[in-house]
Amino acid sequence: MRVEIVAVGTELLLGQIVDTNSAWIAERLAAIGVDCRYQTRIGDNVTRIAGVLEAALARSQAVVVSGGLGPTPDDVTREAIAQVMGVALEMDEEALAGVERALRARHREVSPSNRRQGEVPVGARIIPQRGGTAPGLICPVGEGAIYAVPGVPTEMKEMVERAVLPGLRERSGEPATIMSRVLRTWGAGESVVAEMVGPRLAALDAAGDGAPTIAFLARGLEGVQVRITVKAVSADAGREVLDREEAELRELLGAYVFGVDEETMAMHIGSLLSARHSTLAVAESYTGGLIASTLVAAPGASAWFRGAAVSYASEVKRDLLGLGPGPVVSAAAAAEMANAIRRLLGADVGLATTGVAGPDSQEGMPPGTAFAGAAFPGRGSEAVGFEILGDRQRVRELGTMESLDWLRRHLEKAE
Amino acid sequence: MRVEIVAVGTELLLGQIVDTNSAWIAERLAAIGVDCRYQTRIGDNVTRIAGVLEAALARSQAVVVSGGLGPTPDDVTREAIAQVMGVALEMDEEALAGVERALRARHREVSPSNRRQGEVPVGARIIPQRGGTAPGLICPVGEGAIYAVPGVPTEMKEMVERAVLPGLRERSGEPATIMSRVLRTWGAGESVVAEMVGPRLAALDAAGDGAPTIAFLARGLEGVQVRITVKAVSADAGREVLDREEAELRELLGAYVFGVDEETMAMHIGSLLSARHSTLAVAESYTGGLIASTLVAAPGASAWFRGAAVSYASEVKRDLLGLGPGPVVSAAAAAEMANAIRRLLGADVGLATTGVAGPDSQEGMPPGTAFAGAAFPGRGSEAVGFEILGDRQRVRELGTMESLDWLRRHLEKAE
Repeated sequence: MRVEIVAVGTELLLGQIVDTNSAWIAERLAAIGVDCRYQTRIGDNVTRIAGVLEAALARSQAVVVSGGLGPTPDDVTREAIAQVMGVALEMDEEALAGVERALRARHREVSPSNRRQGEVPVGARIIPQRGGTAPGLICPVGEGAIYAVPGVPTEMKEMVERAVLPGLRERSGEPATIMSRVLRTWGAGESVVAEMVGPRLAALDAAGDGAPTIAFLARGLEGVQVRITVKAVSADAGREVLDREEAELRELLGAYVFGVDEETMAMHIGSLLSARHSTLAVAESYTGGLIASTLVAAPGASAWFRGAAVSYASEVKRDLLGLGPGPVVSAAAAAEMANAIRRLLGADVGLATTGVAGPDSQEGMPPGTAFAGAAFPGRGSEAVGFEILGDRQRVRELGTMESLDWLRRHLEKAE
Repeated sequence: MRVEIVAVGTELLLGQIVDTNSAWIAERLAAIGVDCRYQTRIGDNVTRIAGVLEAALARSQAVVVSGGLGPTPDDVTREAIAQVMGVALEMDEEALAGVERALRARHREVSPSNRRQGEVPVGARIIPQRGGTAPGLICPVGEGAIYAVPGVPTEMKEMVERAVLPGLRERSGEPATIMSRVLRTWGAGESVVAEMVGPRLAALDAAGDGAPTIAFLARGLEGVQVRITVKAVSADAGREVLDREEAELRELLGAYVFGVDEETMAMHIGSLLSARHSTLAVAESYTGGLIASTLVAAPGASAWFRGAAVSYASEVKRDLLGLGPGPVVSAAAAAEMANAIRRLLGADVGLATTGVAGPDSQEGMPPGTAFAGAAFPGRGSEAVGFEILGDRQRVRELGTMESLDWLRRHLEKAE
């Protein structure tokens, strides 16, 4: 089945906000095996929205349109859909009740413009609102359908998951449940990951139609993700296939895999530390607090994260961390800093970074030269060097991920 | 004049990457007064790209298309444009020389697939490449034109600024130079900023056609931006109008303005500190390193930033910063921490944060309770409290900006 994505809003055309909704919807469609060939962004104009919807329905079986369902006069997606359906708008009591309920919950009046949000093209069904005020719409047009959802990302996502994806699956005549799992990797580029997984891809290709599919997504600082998607007759059966496939891929990817689904690098490090009842302290130079703030983003970090020292000035490294007289940008300094911060903050494990973010060189070392050090209870300290390409911001960001990944591999080995 | 924006790439349709190029181009078009009604995303398919370009040229005078100019077989934007122009591709010696030069600079071979990047539709002009390998293309189609640029954001931006915008201005028959300036504000929402500027907006409206225009952009953690755009006969005349208009707006916006154009909050704080030859040290609790990493993102931060302590565990606050026995989440603790970090890292100014990021309460305080403290040479210390709405990540991010803004206002007053 083929589905198009349309985003409505003059602010999108002016570049005032980036359309992240369409990419999110596109990824969810791809995950359930729906084909998407065109995505369009269009302003708040009835004629042009209707024109785009008609063109989309001529090429595809369904359209998901986000935005333009608000209460203000420039929100005209409802009117455009009614025009495409060749029907009038009428007040839907259930939709109106939902609008009133949502506004009352926020202690706000129901103005005449809010009442517009209860209007629905004749023949359309509503997707009842849970978070926001606007209901979604499911609008049959001949053999096809238009699914309209609000532009607010949280409301859009909730309605797409709850009503649009199940509806599209049903329309596609696909009786099976589609489930997916993501393996998160760090340390290899997309093409290298794809190569490692090559043998399994070939085996799945040979197995033919019922087999799981594998897709690769390069996610920048979140690493390369490997998504397994299966069609199954039940959730239990699907989970079983996903478990088996995850095991096959882990066999090939080894220590490159650091997390599953929503598990970030920081969450994974947190659970490794928690499992051994250990705490962590960090000394940061060129990463400038980015490691600490990445770790703290993991919920429950206070159970295992003691704190960090950002020793940006070299004298601070010497005074606070007691660093000796040698060069500051060196493996030895990284190891020494890791030991020092561990003792200073009373943590079990110490992690340290030192390096040159640029644009200028430091101690004769070019930008991108970076070291990480780690200190463990009863095992002394170790250090590693990286050469990172990119501008100042990129060196700090990649250095943060490389250092955390290096620590993660240490903790995994020690398990 | 009307221009459409087209983004090419199957990875966009799969939602693997978000199309930020189109929003960026849209904003630049809006800034030079060009109207944009449709934006389309399309996969790497000659027929469909050609179809979208033809539809766009039927509605608008020009199209800016990004992506699909790479060396691999799926990069077919060149072929699609040639099809729309009804011409063949031919090797362009200048374009090929540019490709070869770019590859040699990276010590890479020129493969046959790279040579494809030197092919140009007959009748098109190239935009010589500066950063990447692919040249851009300027392709006349009847009365209209297609401007093709690479999908890599840095290359795209450079070519749009250098060749596409000037070309479009010329096509629009607009003899004037269009210039703009952005005032960055923090501390008031978009509608409040618009209200403050209201009197000036009214005056400009009354002044009519030749007057500068004002636009508002809510930029999340970068604050609300006020963009002034003028048409002028020369760059000097334009600058003069911008200077005058900036002064008018600063009169109305007062201390809400923290920066101009590309100047971030961190850069502004850095220049305030540099001007008084002062250094800064930071003690962070719930912000967890985000203040330090925000500051360090400013080029040249080593001149004024000493470092930071992230005292995530309460004991670290007591041991490292010598915090007394009272509550940790309090104005008194924030002030004490600011004093302590100033002394500990040998800085002139100390900034500290303490608060509850959530999801759990702490010391009976709900998530979003936050304090900032600052200590200055010879002036003791001060603290302020914030109530921040949102989840854990948002509390940390907004808390970072609120604390930096508070420090910025202190430093400005003391000037």
